[in-house]
Amino acid sequence: MGGEMAEAVDVRQRILAANERAAAELRAQFAAQGTLVINLISSPGSGKTTLLERTVSHLAGQLRLAAVEGDIATERDAERLRRLGIPAKQILTGGACHLDARQVQGALAEAAFPAVDVLFIENVGNLICPTAYDLGEDFKVAVLSVTEGADKPFKYPAIFARAEVTVITKADLLPHVEFDLEAVRTQVGTLNPQGEFLVTSSRTGDGIAAWCALLQRRLAAKRA
Amino acid sequence: MGGEMAEAVDVRQRILAANERAAAELRAQFAAQGTLVINLISSPGSGKTTLLERTVSHLAGQLRLAAVEGDIATERDAERLRRLGIPAKQILTGGACHLDARQVQGALAEAAFPAVDVLFIENVGNLICPTAYDLGEDFKVAVLSVTEGADKPFKYPAIFARAEVTVITKADLLPHVEFDLEAVRTQVGTLNPQGEFLVTSSRTGDGIAAWCALLQRRLAAKRA
Repeated sequence: MGGEMAEAVDVRQRILAANERAAAELRAQFAAQGTLVINLISSPGSGKTTLLERTVSHLAGQLRLAAVEGDIATERDAERLRRLGIPAKQILTGGACHLDARQVQGALAEAAFPAVDVLFIENVGNLICPTAYDLGEDFKVAVLSVTEGADKPFKYPAIFARAEVTVITKADLLPHVEFDLEAVRTQVGTLNPQGEFLVTSSRTGDGIAAWCALLQRRLAAKRA
Repeated sequence: MGGEMAEAVDVRQRILAANERAAAELRAQFAAQGTLVINLISSPGSGKTTLLERTVSHLAGQLRLAAVEGDIATERDAERLRRLGIPAKQILTGGACHLDARQVQGALAEAAFPAVDVLFIENVGNLICPTAYDLGEDFKVAVLSVTEGADKPFKYPAIFARAEVTVITKADLLPHVEFDLEAVRTQVGTLNPQGEFLVTSSRTGDGIAAWCALLQRRLAAKRA
């Protein structure tokens, strides 16, 4: 497999370089529009869409929001957000394990969203592959639920090192699972000393105000 | 990105073809040894290693077991299994999102395990990328925890269609989460009508005997 692997590395570098160019175009477009853009990355089932549902409810009437949803299959996630009254566009990757900047450009061109304050890009459920693909976002958010085990930041270090914000979800389940929250906080702090660390429960609403305040603060800083 | 993408598809096809050749060598080796080989695939934190810990305890003294553990980083999972007294070899992929057959060949050559009845290969935590890489296993097992949400089989159809066995884990958490077990069973049945479907809790031990009986049955069938 040696020759193929060397070729694969070469092709991957060119794909990443082409992705960087598309991401730079997106970033310029978002800057001109004054839109804050968040790239959410996690395992399948960590609660990204549920966090967005809570966020939409909390920020209703305060900020104009929209979402791009990445999935292998089904329109389900975009439908969940449209039901809450925000514009949402589904990207179906058809097997691909991450979103790339070209897909986001295509989705935004098709969707023709109205002007928004914050655009959420919910990546394909995968804690590994999306990490390397810049989507023109202001920052990445790593989402980790308390049911996934406290060893995850050190087992999947790249995303926790790159995400400016780590959001712990499903904190309401802490009494029912073994999850050492302080160990996770320490691991994330080691990988990413400047990162922000939030603990939330979309069921009880705990931590949602702090998360929304962070978005408001980052939006104001971008527009300052 | 068009040219790079076409090249990437071409390189990927050659990588998969090379992988198939290595997998065929492994399969012949496992057949000669009479070893049943299981390739476990799931999201990060679904409880694959904990299921293996329970399995090792349940089958102690009955079957000779060994494990190959795939992770991006840390030796943690192999250490957990060695603590239970079975030989376990860690493969660190250093960023790669799945195991391939060459890595398994290299790990087995280095580890020089004694003769075993069942070899577990625990893939990197990723519900997508490992699906396409044959490791010479007898069958794939998809592991899904009840905390991940009941929409997952249709959102990640490839693995649930290919895995001969789906194991639901963390069933003890069912009272605390929204998870429609029958909806999941129906989705898996649609994707994979011949598949087996097991519900387990590594905490309470529910379903572990049925899972171990399945392994015994498959081992007997392989050696018949």
